[in-house]
Amino acid sequence: MKRIALGAACALLTAPPLAAQDEAPALSPADIVNAAPQSEWVVIAPEDMLVMTLAPGADGTERTVVIQLMPPPFSQGWVANIKRLAQTGWFDGTSINRVQDNYVVQWGDPGHDNPEGEGLEKKPLPSGLRTISEAEYTVSGEAFERLFARTGPTGAAGIQAVFDDDPYAGAAGYADGWPIGIEEDAVWPVHCYGMVGVGRNFSPDTGTGAELYTVIGHAPRHLDRNIALVGRIIGGMEHLSSLPRGSGALGFYAQDEADMRTPILSLRLASELPEEERPLYEYLATGTQTFARYVEARVNRRDLFFIAPAGGADICNVPVPVRPFVYDEPGNQ
Amino acid sequence: MKRIALGAACALLTAPPLAAQDEAPALSPADIVNAAPQSEWVVIAPEDMLVMTLAPGADGTERTVVIQLMPPPFSQGWVANIKRLAQTGWFDGTSINRVQDNYVVQWGDPGHDNPEGEGLEKKPLPSGLRTISEAEYTVSGEAFERLFARTGPTGAAGIQAVFDDDPYAGAAGYADGWPIGIEEDAVWPVHCYGMVGVGRNFSPDTGTGAELYTVIGHAPRHLDRNIALVGRIIGGMEHLSSLPRGSGALGFYAQDEADMRTPILSLRLASELPEEERPLYEYLATGTQTFARYVEARVNRRDLFFIAPAGGADICNVPVPVRPFVYDEPGNQ
Repeated sequence: MKRIALGAACALLTAPPLAAQDEAPALSPADIVNAAPQSEWVVIAPEDMLVMTLAPGADGTERTVVIQLMPPPFSQGWVANIKRLAQTGWFDGTSINRVQDNYVVQWGDPGHDNPEGEGLEKKPLPSGLRTISEAEYTVSGEAFERLFARTGPTGAAGIQAVFDDDPYAGAAGYADGWPIGIEEDAVWPVHCYGMVGVGRNFSPDTGTGAELYTVIGHAPRHLDRNIALVGRIIGGMEHLSSLPRGSGALGFYAQDEADMRTPILSLRLASELPEEERPLYEYLATGTQTFARYVEARVNRRDLFFIAPAGGADICNVPVPVRPFVYDEPGNQ
Repeated sequence: MKRIALGAACALLTAPPLAAQDEAPALSPADIVNAAPQSEWVVIAPEDMLVMTLAPGADGTERTVVIQLMPPPFSQGWVANIKRLAQTGWFDGTSINRVQDNYVVQWGDPGHDNPEGEGLEKKPLPSGLRTISEAEYTVSGEAFERLFARTGPTGAAGIQAVFDDDPYAGAAGYADGWPIGIEEDAVWPVHCYGMVGVGRNFSPDTGTGAELYTVIGHAPRHLDRNIALVGRIIGGMEHLSSLPRGSGALGFYAQDEADMRTPILSLRLASELPEEERPLYEYLATGTQTFARYVEARVNRRDLFFIAPAGGADICNVPVPVRPFVYDEPGNQ
């Protein structure tokens, strides 16, 4: 596979620190992102978002979590299963069953693959779920090139190798707004904070999508290529990351902690919600000049607080900016 | 500075995966650590631990946090200040003021350097606190060699460069049980999950130690060499990481969230507590054979769950094992 390198970002990464030449403090990464023109942001389609409504908090706080699903060609078998589970309302009435500090929050049927679930019945799955092969943890270069040839000029940025010193892959970078690992013959999504994956049992099981987790600590990159990643939390992450930790095996809530499982009231595709209830989010396109400047500023922090820019970074310390999209009525300028 | 490389670990890192030769599933990193002989564990001295008692949780749960302070030659100016603050009871009655998702929990005087602290008085600091130079964010090779020459044969492992592909430093590794960054002329502690640092204002301020934070997300390694690290959370981390996030600037609790600040009832050096109240913890010495095997197993996961070992890792994904020390009465074997 050819690596479609991001020329601009790579050049910037090796450029001398600008602060040596400038007197004014440099822009922070957030300043750079906030100055991006609207044309560099991509609004996320409602077909690519899940809305998970948790039971309200003890103080009555509403708790809504929004998940962006991965686009083709990544993990599409599991994504299709998850859409089917959402469309059949299968997750409604399940719960958050595992909160392991510095690792993951996991949700689904508490009676399924739960080391603390003794005595619980397993909730039957709907028909129509596919069994996915381990081969689909990664995407071949050809698959990506086929997709890229089809979508090429419409704005897809393709594969950008940015971090040549990634310890877990030949390189790490971005593909159309997602963090990826890159080898000669394959690419795959990587386990950064907030990424959503598919719980599974021992190989060759790959999970159906009925057990999902998100990362709430340091990136467990050793899971890359070992578990399917299907998306990322883009709203309400704090409702998951701040949940009380479970004291059972693997951070599952122990049998005497059953009342600590947070109920999931519903999990729906945003496109199946009434239009006024759909969340609106957008992400900064990773093929843009602003994104290249943002990467460079994260690698060499020169804003006011910093005295020693690192000169390097890791893929999970340079997250793709995602924010609520606020629709500006024409004439409201 | 000479790099005192960990020969055993480096050899193991390049050895072929053992699973190709063996039929039985490999030991997990946890299995390896659990099998370590007691002689490879180092009990932490009570002079090197802080005990922070938070107000009980809403359900009455006791919340005790234990912090291990960094040993010489790292950050000793700030460590001395923090010991003085603990000895004078200065932290008692302060609070946790900032909880920023995927970043830090920060505690101290809510009236000090708090963007949401308008109208609050600043709590006076005790006398005897030193102002520390930015030069002390790192330690020169000579300083480490001096210390090592003094303590050498008594069990200190010195500097072990393990990860040559660290993006933030020439290499990353361990020094006597702590994760560090390594360059030709200096070493420094690094910002992994659970590490404790000293909040500061803009340079040349370096902080006194009266504002402390810990990392609750992906390692913000860009802070290395920009802020002093003084220790790590070794007990009760979940009482910090699961706190509700603040909605004010930088994740501070906003002015209308003042009641969300968790009160700190006391913060004491363990050595100043009655002997029966002192926590007991131990860490796996990083110069041991077990630690080398543990690193290798984290780099190449071959235990039952894994199908694709990464062949690499980053320093913050290979934490030094720390556990409660349980004293075995002689004769209880």
